[in-house]
Amino acid sequence: MSSYDAPLRDMRFLLHDLGLLNSVNDLPGMGDASAELVDAILEEANRLAREKLVPINRSADHAGGAKLENGVVRTPDGWQEAYDAFVEGGWNSVPFDPDYGGQGLPWLVGIAVQEIWQSANLAWALCPLLTQGAVELLGAHGSPEQKTTWLPKLISGEWAGTMNLTEPGAGSDVGALKCRAERAGDHYLIRGQKIFITYGDHEMTDNIVHMVLARTPDAPAGTRGISLFIVPKFLVGADGAPGKRNDLRCISLEEKLGIHGSPTCVMSYGDSDGAIGYLIGEENRGMEYMFTMMNNARLGVGLQGVAIAERAYQQARDYARERVQGTTLGGSTAIIGHPDVRRMLLTMRAETEAARAITYDLAAMLDIAARHKEESWRNYAARRAALMTPVVKAWCTDIGVEVASLGVQVHGGMGYIEETGAAQFARDVRVTAIYEGTNGIQAMDLVGRKMMDGGDAAYAMLDEIQDHAEAARTKHRRLAEPLWQATENLREATEWLVQQEDLNKRFAGAVPYLTAFARVLGGHYHLKAAMEEPEEGPRAKLARFYMTRLLPEHLGLLAQAKAGAADLYALSPEEMTA
Amino acid sequence: MSSYDAPLRDMRFLLHDLGLLNSVNDLPGMGDASAELVDAILEEANRLAREKLVPINRSADHAGGAKLENGVVRTPDGWQEAYDAFVEGGWNSVPFDPDYGGQGLPWLVGIAVQEIWQSANLAWALCPLLTQGAVELLGAHGSPEQKTTWLPKLISGEWAGTMNLTEPGAGSDVGALKCRAERAGDHYLIRGQKIFITYGDHEMTDNIVHMVLARTPDAPAGTRGISLFIVPKFLVGADGAPGKRNDLRCISLEEKLGIHGSPTCVMSYGDSDGAIGYLIGEENRGMEYMFTMMNNARLGVGLQGVAIAERAYQQARDYARERVQGTTLGGSTAIIGHPDVRRMLLTMRAETEAARAITYDLAAMLDIAARHKEESWRNYAARRAALMTPVVKAWCTDIGVEVASLGVQVHGGMGYIEETGAAQFARDVRVTAIYEGTNGIQAMDLVGRKMMDGGDAAYAMLDEIQDHAEAARTKHRRLAEPLWQATENLREATEWLVQQEDLNKRFAGAVPYLTAFARVLGGHYHLKAAMEEPEEGPRAKLARFYMTRLLPEHLGLLAQAKAGAADLYALSPEEMTA
Repeated sequence: MSSYDAPLRDMRFLLHDLGLLNSVNDLPGMGDASAELVDAILEEANRLAREKLVPINRSADHAGGAKLENGVVRTPDGWQEAYDAFVEGGWNSVPFDPDYGGQGLPWLVGIAVQEIWQSANLAWALCPLLTQGAVELLGAHGSPEQKTTWLPKLISGEWAGTMNLTEPGAGSDVGALKCRAERAGDHYLIRGQKIFITYGDHEMTDNIVHMVLARTPDAPAGTRGISLFIVPKFLVGADGAPGKRNDLRCISLEEKLGIHGSPTCVMSYGDSDGAIGYLIGEENRGMEYMFTMMNNARLGVGLQGVAIAERAYQQARDYARERVQGTTLGGSTAIIGHPDVRRMLLTMRAETEAARAITYDLAAMLDIAARHKEESWRNYAARRAALMTPVVKAWCTDIGVEVASLGVQVHGGMGYIEETGAAQFARDVRVTAIYEGTNGIQAMDLVGRKMMDGGDAAYAMLDEIQDHAEAARTKHRRLAEPLWQATENLREATEWLVQQEDLNKRFAGAVPYLTAFARVLGGHYHLKAAMEEPEEGPRAKLARFYMTRLLPEHLGLLAQAKAGAADLYALSPEEMTA
Repeated sequence: MSSYDAPLRDMRFLLHDLGLLNSVNDLPGMGDASAELVDAILEEANRLAREKLVPINRSADHAGGAKLENGVVRTPDGWQEAYDAFVEGGWNSVPFDPDYGGQGLPWLVGIAVQEIWQSANLAWALCPLLTQGAVELLGAHGSPEQKTTWLPKLISGEWAGTMNLTEPGAGSDVGALKCRAERAGDHYLIRGQKIFITYGDHEMTDNIVHMVLARTPDAPAGTRGISLFIVPKFLVGADGAPGKRNDLRCISLEEKLGIHGSPTCVMSYGDSDGAIGYLIGEENRGMEYMFTMMNNARLGVGLQGVAIAERAYQQARDYARERVQGTTLGGSTAIIGHPDVRRMLLTMRAETEAARAITYDLAAMLDIAARHKEESWRNYAARRAALMTPVVKAWCTDIGVEVASLGVQVHGGMGYIEETGAAQFARDVRVTAIYEGTNGIQAMDLVGRKMMDGGDAAYAMLDEIQDHAEAARTKHRRLAEPLWQATENLREATEWLVQQEDLNKRFAGAVPYLTAFARVLGGHYHLKAAMEEPEEGPRAKLARFYMTRLLPEHLGLLAQAKAGAADLYALSPEEMTA
């Protein structure tokens, strides 16, 4: 019913024509990612996605998704087979350390491949995404022995990983968590409950390696008293094979709006003797360790927004080309001839392209920040990546939500019928604006932590955009001028923001500011794309649509960004009740 | 879990303080709707909604909604009991003709009451809304005999009504329908299939009276060859009681994104001998008749947007006041202290208030247009209502979708869990932007048909807004000035639009134009509300929030409205494929 074909032409355009791959493929410690190799990888990923992941996306949703039966989580039909093929093909190991079996390819390439899994089947693709988080944590902070024990199997995908942060009273406020960890010789005993644990249990892999945040008995309050533990589902003996069952279990699954195929578990640790856990690094530094994997995790979630936007766009476009409903003024019978259907489809496409460009650029920056041989380059890339991370996470997921909703609308009444599949994309993608730090929290991060430099990183980005717009003026004046001006407006708002010492005043306009920032960034990438083409090339025409129709949105957003906090607190909670 | 309390204070403010009720309660032919009577009605409606409708809203959704079992549609648990209490209390008859058992109250009052049912349980409330459509059609176009036969039972609610327009190949393009009607003596035999028939079958009432569009054998093609028929589920004998089963049936139910409690039927007419139907009015005038009920139907659907926005707001506000998550800079522990949560809640509230005001105003205009003793008043009100109808339908449902999504976001991770109920509101309300003419079609109506007067009706509305803003300047300068300017910007865009003879150029910006129009209208009602209060009154403070944060959105929208169609057709469908 709903087909998918990876947008290889768009991906190659970013990687090759816009030079992203060149910026990373000769970094030290990376295998040589030639254009030919990357193209072949993407084509193969597309084949696997179309053969194994697309066909089980709607069926799993329709059947209600993962089930907890007699204490065992059952993944939907086809899930295991697809996972086996994924591991068999070596797909889990793409961006990881060759010392432990990884392929050592750039994150940029890993991200392009990941987009394909996420487009094809978001619920399924969450499993390897969580494993990736565990690999990163262990790679950065595990002891040599821990790495040897856990990394090879996690990197191959034979074992899966999970992240255990949230508790009923500790969501965005991770510091409030209560899960306990008591030292018992060479290990700890973990006791407590965790909620919203993605793929907290299943039988697709021989073992599941849980990364669990907990408090030792005398730990300080708040985030400075949290430690990080490896808590495997099955304990691993000297032979490296999974043995005795650890004292942990999934006690229920959440009934969610979407991603039904992904089991979201309530996990209970240590109901009997305490679950055996192994400390990563030092006590009380768990949150600090967590932050090292958050950049990639947030990038990965932003990418989910791009991926579902792409999928929703493909489906809506195909539907609009086939569906006949009346005759347009131009004489077309398919609804793609109607101006408002066009407007919706081009909005979907222009937003998706912008979001993908920002996302891939961030991936390249993370590669450069991690591996460039010159420190100044590493620092530059790290600052830029830190600034862009909340923008990518929040905006790309907002775009995913918006584009999926437009996809429903293009289908008209059929969009509201689940069989069509358009509604599933809207339900699935909605979570991406919430998890891995709500988009509101991302915006606070942007205007708070990421502007503790007085705005330097932001200004550097704005300079880059304006310099490019000036250079582009001769060839694409109609694109470059509005972008230059929008950037100037954004600069003024940025200056206003960084002057506010009262952080609440920044936070009060944080979300609109972030959106306006992304609007301008999106224009930057559209202009870059247009520069590769003559004025009437398709990317230049799409850029014109973006500059004319979408970029002006920044005006209203910046008005909000500079509104201050007074109006938000003028009404008391009592006055907010009619 | 999720409670609801009708916003009686807000409703009374519109009806009494802003004078809406006074504008209609002494119209000829209406019972005297005194303020006391109306208040008592609203309180009773609130009681019934809280007792009977709220408790079965989530349970019906959770259990999967209406079911088709052995050819019989089963409504969810509690549906029948609530319906019986509704009919028993005389609630179905509120705005209808006293000659046939109605209470003859203004539509304005009927709309306020209807908001309460829709907030409490949208899926359930669709049943009386469809009956209302049948009552209006028969009241306007039925023969005296038809009225006597059908109206009393439809008005009491003992029987239900449905609308049968859509067919698989005829959705927005109603003129493409193929259902056939052949004369057979004093009746017609109807044969064909209809889809998306809301409450097409159920057993809550003794009979169901289907209003069916079909073509007679020699009818002209398109919308000029469509006739309208009464096709009852049970034929009615000389005694007026339901007798023999007519040849029609529900052959399947759609699996939908939301409103699960409402059976959406595929109906088959005339599989055996032909379904007996009775022509309303004359042959080939069915579409013309349909239009007479579309104003109220579109108002009713816009109201659904308001109703779910209100419901989502109440739930999010209550959650934000209770949920503790970290400490804000201001020292609050409940999340309502966070600036971004405030921003979301105030957006929800300001949008809902604006949407409700526009909707109730339209209801009053329809009353005046139908009943005022002076023709000039009737004409004025009719023009204004015609202009506002697409705005109310489209914008209020867009607001419903946006506010329900913000409601999910305020809940954070809990918002994605179905148990919370926030997600159901988002799923339920999504259909309102699609049915009864998609919002894109509403926007085409606004810039096309509703501006065939050269923009006179629109300019009259803009004059009214600017006159009021000028008068309000002394008291509320900070509110009146931006509103005046935004109206001026809207006027310029309107002038541009009406100058475009190529309708495609208007349609290309129709949706953003409609949204900008509503933005300005919303500001008008916020200013009117503020005028009833001192500068620091709660409605004045909410108006300030609206003018500062939401009104500036019109700038970006108007840029789109004036963009023309060229950029939409610059890319070929082939170029829209990567």
